[in-house]
Amino acid sequence: MNATETQHDSKVRFLDAALHVIRAKGYSATRIEDICEAAKLTKGSFFHHFDGKEELALAAAAHFAGMADALFATAPYQSASDPLERLLGYVDFRIAILQGSLPEFTCLLGTMVQETYETHPAIRAACDQAMSSHIAVLTRYVEAAKKRYAPRASWSPESVGYFIQGVLQGSFILAKAKQSPKVARGNLDHLRCYLKFLFNQPGNTRRKEKP
Amino acid sequence: MNATETQHDSKVRFLDAALHVIRAKGYSATRIEDICEAAKLTKGSFFHHFDGKEELALAAAAHFAGMADALFATAPYQSASDPLERLLGYVDFRIAILQGSLPEFTCLLGTMVQETYETHPAIRAACDQAMSSHIAVLTRYVEAAKKRYAPRASWSPESVGYFIQGVLQGSFILAKAKQSPKVARGNLDHLRCYLKFLFNQPGNTRRKEKP
Repeated sequence: MNATETQHDSKVRFLDAALHVIRAKGYSATRIEDICEAAKLTKGSFFHHFDGKEELALAAAAHFAGMADALFATAPYQSASDPLERLLGYVDFRIAILQGSLPEFTCLLGTMVQETYETHPAIRAACDQAMSSHIAVLTRYVEAAKKRYAPRASWSPESVGYFIQGVLQGSFILAKAKQSPKVARGNLDHLRCYLKFLFNQPGNTRRKEKP
Repeated sequence: MNATETQHDSKVRFLDAALHVIRAKGYSATRIEDICEAAKLTKGSFFHHFDGKEELALAAAAHFAGMADALFATAPYQSASDPLERLLGYVDFRIAILQGSLPEFTCLLGTMVQETYETHPAIRAACDQAMSSHIAVLTRYVEAAKKRYAPRASWSPESVGYFIQGVLQGSFILAKAKQSPKVARGNLDHLRCYLKFLFNQPGNTRRKEKP
């Protein structure tokens, strides 16, 4: 590796460390020392890359969102041709990735915004932006499924996108309280059941496909 | 007031202060000084009542749960004679109390467990206990409604209790990200819609009441 690659590599190691440490103990309790220890890098190197903990948190939010985007972009449900199948496949995939330890499957954004929303406006805004961007993707899935299966329904696709994200975030909290992903799985089963219902209400007119 | 009453009064002032300050900035960022300032009491008085911040957090979880129990015990939905009406009335009441500032309507338990679940086992256990006790009440409402309206449905009342709590917790996170209760209201509207669906599925046999 040349010097630029080494710099890039150490920055990514700090960001990966932030994802783990902040999801394990929260933003406020995380010390720069904890990040350096987890990354196996020095404080000097840390301050070469970041002004301080808040700048790290902002970069970590973007890093987390980028990793999530890449994970979802290659997920099995992307190959579904039917929009409702894609949406339900998304939920199935979220259930499937409830694996490993709590800091591995819970959400950096929800964890950080929970405690910083009033005291760190820039972190709140970064979490909001990353969550909203994921919700916008979900909203497009819901919109496509609604067009085909429930064009006359009165709910908005965006409100369903928020609901899906809300169920996920709340399920992570319950998983932390119970120290197990089991209750999160149960919640996502109910979410799946609700989504199926939304697109299969009596009175929905399935829009006929052109032959 | 006599000395015992004054002691009780100052303890409650610390607990009320904890409810506000921890919900505003999280557990880790809260300093004992912040609690004393919000309670308008001295550090000496604080340490008369509590060994430290963790003991305060445990007492605050119980205080919060006690206040919530009292609030729900006198809520309008308690007078509903029909169990499904009571359950939907509970959701309506949760929508109605999404008022005031974020630290006023969000949940102390969800806020604390989010960041302490791995580092403070006693706080996690206290949050779990208080949440589980509320979920048990919801489970009884769901059970009664299921008995009457959906006795053959395959879902468990407890899983619906968890789902309701999950939607609430996740909605608080989105409200913090968006700095508004609006998205939480939308999520609870979807929750209400799902609960109505669960008890009105075709194929549910409404159990006939004895005359």
